[in-house]
This record gives sequence, structure tokens and C-alpha cells, in this order.
Amino acid sequence: MANTIKEAAKGITKRADDYSQWYLDIIEVAELADNSPVRGCMVIKPYGYAIWEKFQAVLDEMFKETGVANAYFPLFIPLSFFNREAEHVEGFAKECAVVTHHRLELGTDGKLKPAGELDEPLIVRPTSETIIYDTYSKWINSYRDLPLLINQWCNVVRWEMRTRPFLRTMEFLWQEGHTAHASREEAEQRTRQMADIYQKFCEEYLALPIIAGFKTESEKFAGAEYTTCIEAIMQDKKALQAGTSHMLGQNFAKPFNVMFLDSDGERKYVWQTSWGVSTRLIGALIMAHSDDIGLVLPPRIAPIPVVIVPIWASDTEKDQTLAKAQEIRRQLEDGLKIKAQIDEREERPGEKFYHWEKKGVPLRLEIGPKDLLSDSAVAVRRDNGKKEKVKFSDLPEYVEKTLADIQQSLFDRAKQFRQTNTHSVDSYEEFKKVLETEGGFIWSHWCGSAACEARIKEETKATIRCLPFDQEQEEGRCLICGQRSRQRVVFAKAY
Amino acid sequence: MANTIKEAAKGITKRADDYSQWYLDIIEVAELADNSPVRGCMVIKPYGYAIWEKFQAVLDEMFKETGVANAYFPLFIPLSFFNREAEHVEGFAKECAVVTHHRLELGTDGKLKPAGELDEPLIVRPTSETIIYDTYSKWINSYRDLPLLINQWCNVVRWEMRTRPFLRTMEFLWQEGHTAHASREEAEQRTRQMADIYQKFCEEYLALPIIAGFKTESEKFAGAEYTTCIEAIMQDKKALQAGTSHMLGQNFAKPFNVMFLDSDGERKYVWQTSWGVSTRLIGALIMAHSDDIGLVLPPRIAPIPVVIVPIWASDTEKDQTLAKAQEIRRQLEDGLKIKAQIDEREERPGEKFYHWEKKGVPLRLEIGPKDLLSDSAVAVRRDNGKKEKVKFSDLPEYVEKTLADIQQSLFDRAKQFRQTNTHSVDSYEEFKKVLETEGGFIWSHWCGSAACEARIKEETKATIRCLPFDQEQEEGRCLICGQRSRQRVVFAKAY
Repeated sequence: MANTIKEAAKGITKRADDYSQWYLDIIEVAELADNSPVRGCMVIKPYGYAIWEKFQAVLDEMFKETGVANAYFPLFIPLSFFNREAEHVEGFAKECAVVTHHRLELGTDGKLKPAGELDEPLIVRPTSETIIYDTYSKWINSYRDLPLLINQWCNVVRWEMRTRPFLRTMEFLWQEGHTAHASREEAEQRTRQMADIYQKFCEEYLALPIIAGFKTESEKFAGAEYTTCIEAIMQDKKALQAGTSHMLGQNFAKPFNVMFLDSDGERKYVWQTSWGVSTRLIGALIMAHSDDIGLVLPPRIAPIPVVIVPIWASDTEKDQTLAKAQEIRRQLEDGLKIKAQIDEREERPGEKFYHWEKKGVPLRLEIGPKDLLSDSAVAVRRDNGKKEKVKFSDLPEYVEKTLADIQQSLFDRAKQFRQTNTHSVDSYEEFKKVLETEGGFIWSHWCGSAACEARIKEETKATIRCLPFDQEQEEGRCLICGQRSRQRVVFAKAY
Repeated sequence: MANTIKEAAKGITKRADDYSQWYLDIIEVAELADNSPVRGCMVIKPYGYAIWEKFQAVLDEMFKETGVANAYFPLFIPLSFFNREAEHVEGFAKECAVVTHHRLELGTDGKLKPAGELDEPLIVRPTSETIIYDTYSKWINSYRDLPLLINQWCNVVRWEMRTRPFLRTMEFLWQEGHTAHASREEAEQRTRQMADIYQKFCEEYLALPIIAGFKTESEKFAGAEYTTCIEAIMQDKKALQAGTSHMLGQNFAKPFNVMFLDSDGERKYVWQTSWGVSTRLIGALIMAHSDDIGLVLPPRIAPIPVVIVPIWASDTEKDQTLAKAQEIRRQLEDGLKIKAQIDEREERPGEKFYHWEKKGVPLRLEIGPKDLLSDSAVAVRRDNGKKEKVKFSDLPEYVEKTLADIQQSLFDRAKQFRQTNTHSVDSYEEFKKVLETEGGFIWSHWCGSAACEARIKEETKATIRCLPFDQEQEEGRCLICGQRSRQRVVFAKAY
């Protein structure tokens, strides 16, 4: 490991020195994304996109198991649609890409200029509630058409001023689910069900421990009755909102006239939900597990869970180690459905080791001429760097067991980290001190007023991440005003 | 069948009466797509999108087998990029969505108005050569970085004036592959390889017989050195271009400065290709196989290859037929990996039969109380309406064999149709007559001049669909000018 760490030190800023730069360095050395010539837009490189494809495959199956089907709605939204839901336009009109022309023409100065002005400008979707619910008003007639459970995988655009790859970009990829129900109860259940699915996905696949709960009024989605969210902690002790699921009530059903004839013969407005996760989750994944050597990926979402590195000094050795590598790959892929890649490149072994360490491949198997003599490979774990000699005959079982162990270890480590960085605080004085010196999640009492919330945010930059679900009631007093409170809420500085 | 055909007659225009309306009716009754409030944009409904998902899964695997990886590039292209390749801007500047503002503000009249004008307008990508190759110029340094083989699944926008669902819409979904190579030969091979893959996909999955070949200069992609294409015939005897693969030569490499240091120490421009198919293929699929009852889908790309319809008159019968249906579904899904859906709805059997006929499900299995007594199901093929009684014990084998047979029959039928509607014509007089009275593909001699091609197009609306690959040389004389020609080309009226 020694020389690979040394090499690592060359390209990657240490977390302790500059966490933000470290994050960008990881994205670069792991070849996840690149800047683009369009301000605030990134290019997702093949390895980064392969991670997104893994996310998509898992989530898509989870959604479909609950009866959701995919569909596709237009990229553009007529300007007038935005005016219909007051909070919604307020939340999104400030930052959107507006299409005003449909042609280019050569100007008198010989340069291309926009031409063909549109009667009504079109907005590039920042989210699709309005255009989708306008369509739902045509599709839904009777209670037999409900529930309507649809998801869309697509790109959206929000004109963000300060961007950072994956975490906040002008254009990003996401999924947005949109459901319509006959009753409030059913919509509330769906809102919670999707938050639960996101939590399960983050915990079981991304190895990201989650606190799920309700957003406050000031932090909810513009247009929702209430918003639920999943919150994770990053290694710099800041919180990251990793997904949201909104109970929309009838806030969109009314302006978009989404009604159904109920079994009792009455026409009623539907109850709706929407929910989404985005490429931002890749940012969370990077920041939760990676280290000063490079990316660290949990096996269940790693595009390449196992890399096999044959080592040779002569052509004969190359033939022999490569043949063995191929045999092992076949065993893993055919027998266990575990994808393994062989690194056949003509590079020094150290170069190869580091290449895959930077890319966060969970398990590396090295096979050199000496290993062939002892009928064994050297297995190296990315999460803790541990090396082990493993007999070829034991390899399939070892790989399967070790990948599961790495997955669990990453989750346990992240959970331990969160526990170490979670504080329970009962005075504003202490709150400010802990936030300043320790950071992390702070559980405190809050009266429920927007004024107290705003003051804390203004004075400390900490926000209420959520009012956790299923939390024990506890009597207390608001940090700011001293009013009664029945539940602690989770504060943190956040991305 | 009788009553289902009668019902069908209610909602669907007959092909013979109005082919264009029939096409729209099929899209409606099969629930494939819907109009949207945005001019020229459609909504792809869940069943239509499920077909696209099947296409994506198959094509994505075919691409990856040839070493292609997916990535994602920005939706927006800076206006200045368009100016760099002269033919390209000419081809695309006339019809594009232009983003000029990044905010909405309330005007004095209380209405939202575009605000925050951009210094440089952004174009919503009509295709991504320019933005991708600008990025390639950073990624490619040495011959070791080549070939670079990348594909993108995304949405694109072209401001079409006359639109038709799937066939031509303002926004559509597609994949665009973009490769860079060290030599002309390799780029030419890749151009052809992708045309071959598209042909294989169309023939083996969509059951669409294809003529593949070169486009003429006037029909090629704006910016390509040459374009290859795959052409299919529809039931109204018009041609449809189902996919294209372009040899770009160095036409983009030069303006975008995509260079590499070759193994001989010289810096050279790369050779490039791009290739794509879109949701237009769904239009081709509909028009090639469907009939006056509804959609007809080839089993290999049908989202639901088999539907099982239990029939009951009492609760006991319902329990029994449903239990049998579930047993059969398990056999098909677990044993043969053939997806089967059970229609449990409380509807009349005739309604259910017709519902799935409209949706083009290839094979229907009916299970009523009498069938249980004889240990058999009634199997009905969607392609030819044939009914057969099949013993439960024979069912898995029967289903597997019959689905393969339907797939082959659809292909054979389409091929037969194309053969019947292909004519070899040697004079312009006869050409016009055949085109008028028969339509279809007309193989004729053409000298190679744009003038003769343009005259034929102007006078008859027929275009040269392609100069087929691998065609036998044959001496002849151009239909128009009488100059020598060595090869017949394929003419047709086209979508």
C-alpha cells in the first residue's frame, strides 16, 4: 500500500486540509465528472454515469414493486402554468431557463441571433408538477382511475448561482414520482412509503445512515402541504438532504382541476404526492465514504465490485496469470453474478493498484507468478486496506462474504461517525458553542415558530434538517423563546 | 373474436379508409401517447414508455458489447458553438429552442415576464456533436485515449412545424453515440458496425426488414462526410428512416480541435462517427405490424408478451381459475423468464380480450371453468387470431414455441409485404406511373447528380432512400439524364 498512498498524496488534497477541494479532487481522480463550457452544467463521465445507472436500476425496481410505472412528459412548461399555484411560482420563478425564440438568423453583423419570438415563453422544467397535473386532469375521471402512480426519469434545470458538481448543478438528472389518490390517508401513506424507500435505498445500497422526518414550513417544497426528507451526515459533519417526498394535499389538484367521480357519485379533487432523488446522491456517496486515497464505493452499487490484477514480468507469466484471472472472473460472474474486471493494461502493478483504489473498487485480487505457485491470490480491501492470501479454491466464497462485509462495515463506520457527531443540547449558548467547535447533528427543542427558526439560521447558519418520524415525545423548552416543546428536532449546517 | 372485432370497429378508423387517422387511433386505443399542452410535444404514456424501455435495454446491451459506455453531456449548447461547423449550423439553426433569459419577474401588468437576459443565448440541443466534441478536445491527448466510444440517452429538441406522435415531435428521446478514432478506416468500420447493429435490432427484435445503405449528399447529416441509414417500409408503402450512422471524417475534429499525439510522435486530428435512433422507432413499429383491431407487437419487445385471462361466473369459479392462472404465470416467469400478466379485473371476458388485443399483447391464454375440466387453456394469437386448445401440461413449451413463431411470422409477413411492394423500374415515365399507382420501393438507376435527384423529388415527392450496401454492380442509365450508372438506388415517398 505504501507507494500507492504516496502517489495518492500527489493528486488529492487531504480532507483535513481543505474538504471542498478534496471533494473536487476525488471527482477528478475517480473520473466521475468534468466541467462543461456551459456555466453550472457538468459532464457526467462514463464511470460517474455507471454509478447513476446502478442507482437507476435499483430504484426503478423498488418503485415498480409498489405499482409505479414510468412515463415521459414534455421538457417545456408554458409560462402561464406557473402562475396557477402561488407558492410554487414563488419558489421556482426566480431561477429558471426561459425559451423565448425558436430560430437563429444571421444578423447584419454576420453573427447568429435569436429569431422567431414565441407568443408565450416556455420554461425548461425545474420540476414537473404543473405540466403533469394538467395532463392528469384529462386522464383521471373516476375513482377507478385511482391511484395513478407514475414516475419520470429526466433532466431538470434550475438556474443556480453557486454550483458544485453533483451537489448543485444548473441541469441535473433525477426521477420525479407523481401520484394521485382518492383519499388524504392514501396520499399520506404514499408520501411516507416513498421516504421509507429512499431511506432503505440509502442505507442498504449506499451504506448511508439516514434520519428521516418532516421539513419545517419554511423548508418545505414550494406548493406542498408538507415535505418529508431523508438527511445524511457527511465527513465534514455537515448534513445533506438526499431525497424528498411531498404530500401535496389538494394544492395542485385545485388550480389544475384534477377531479374524479367518487364511488358515492360525488366529484372530488384528488390528493397528490410527488417525490424525487437526483444525481446529488452521487455527491452524498462520495462525501460519506471516500478517503484521502480516492473514492470508496459500497459493493452493492459499485459498477465494478471486483478488479483482478494479473502481475507478470515475462510473456509466459503474462499468459499464466491472465489465464488464471479469466478463470476466476468466470467463476465470479457465472456462478455468483458478481461482476469482475481484469486489468490487462501494460502498466506497473503499483500504477494499476492505485488506479482502482482511486476509483473506489471495493475488492482487488492480485495474481502474480508466486501466487500461482501457492495456488492463491492476494485480496486487498478498499475500505480498510487489509491484505489477505486466499486459496483459489476458497476465492468465490471469500469474495461473496467479503463484499457483504465491506458493505456492512461502511454502513457501520458511517453510523458510528454520525453517533460520535450527534449532540443533544438544551441551551442556545451551548448550541452555538457545540456548532462552532464540534459541528454535526444537534438535537434540540424548538417551539415550532418560524421566527425562532429564522433567528437560529441567521445567527448560526444551522437549519432544522427535520422533525424525525417516530420519535419519542419529550417535554422541553425552545432554545430561543423558551416556549414549551414536545419533541427535539435535528439542527445542522447543511449542503 | 367476433364481438371484439365489432367493438374495435367502433374506435379505430380502418387503414384502408384513412391511414393517418388509423395511426393516431392506434396510439390512442393502445394508450401509447397523448397530446400535451406544449405545441408539438407529446406525453409518452406508461405503456408506450414501457416499449421504449424494452428498446433501451436491448440496444444498450448491444452497444456495451462493442465497448461503448454511457455518459451525459449538457442540455444546453452555447450559441457560438453552432458557428464553428458551417454545414451543421445551416442544418440545425433554422429550428431550435433558444434560451435567452434565466428568470421570471412580475411585470407592471401583474403578469410574469422573462428577465435576466443572458450574455450569450443557449440552444437546447438538437443533437450534441458540438458540445461533446468540445469536451473530447480536453479528454483526448494521445493515441492511448483512442478509440473513445461514448453513448448518451437523452432528450433533444428540434422546432418542427408539422408534428406527428413518435414520427416527428418537437422534443424526442433518443440515444446518440459519439466515437473518436485514430484512423479513417477504424471510423468507417464503426460507422458501418452501428448501422449493422441497428439493422439487427430492427430485424430480430422489431421484426422490421431493413434496407441499409448510404444517403446521398443532399440527404446526409449536416456536418457528416457521409451518412448511412436503415430504411423500412410501412403498410401504406411509404418508407421510414429508422436510424442513421454518420461518418463525420474530420469535419468536427478540425473546428473543435480534437487532436491526439500518435504513436509516431505526430499530432493528428481524430476521425469521428455519430449514430442514433429515437422514439421514432416506436412509430415505425406501430405502422409496420398493427391492424384494424389495434396494436400488434413482436414478442421480443412486447412489455407484456403473454396475458392470462381467467373467466368466471361465480366466486368459486373465480378462485379456481385465478389459482390456475397464477400457477401458469409462475411456470412461465420462473421457468422460462417469460413475463405474463393476469387480468383480474371485474370486466366481461369480451372486454378483457379486446383490451389486450388493442394493446398488441402477442399471446392470450383464456382459462374458464370448462377449460379447468379439460385441463387445458385456450390460446389466442394476436398476429393471426388463431385459437388453439392447449393442455396445461404442454403450456410452457407451447408458449415458448408460439412466441418464437409469432416473432418469425411478423418478420416474414413484413418481408413479404416489402417484396410485393418493391419494383424495378427503368424509365422515368414508368417510374412516375408505378409511384402513382403502386407506391413502395422503386429500384432505379441514377447518375449521382444532385440535379437529377432534386428534379425527381420536386416532380414526384419521391426521394432516394439509400444507395444499398453490398449491392451487385449493374450497368444502367439515369432515369432523368440518361448518363451511365453502375448501381440501382432505392426511391420511395417517405415519412
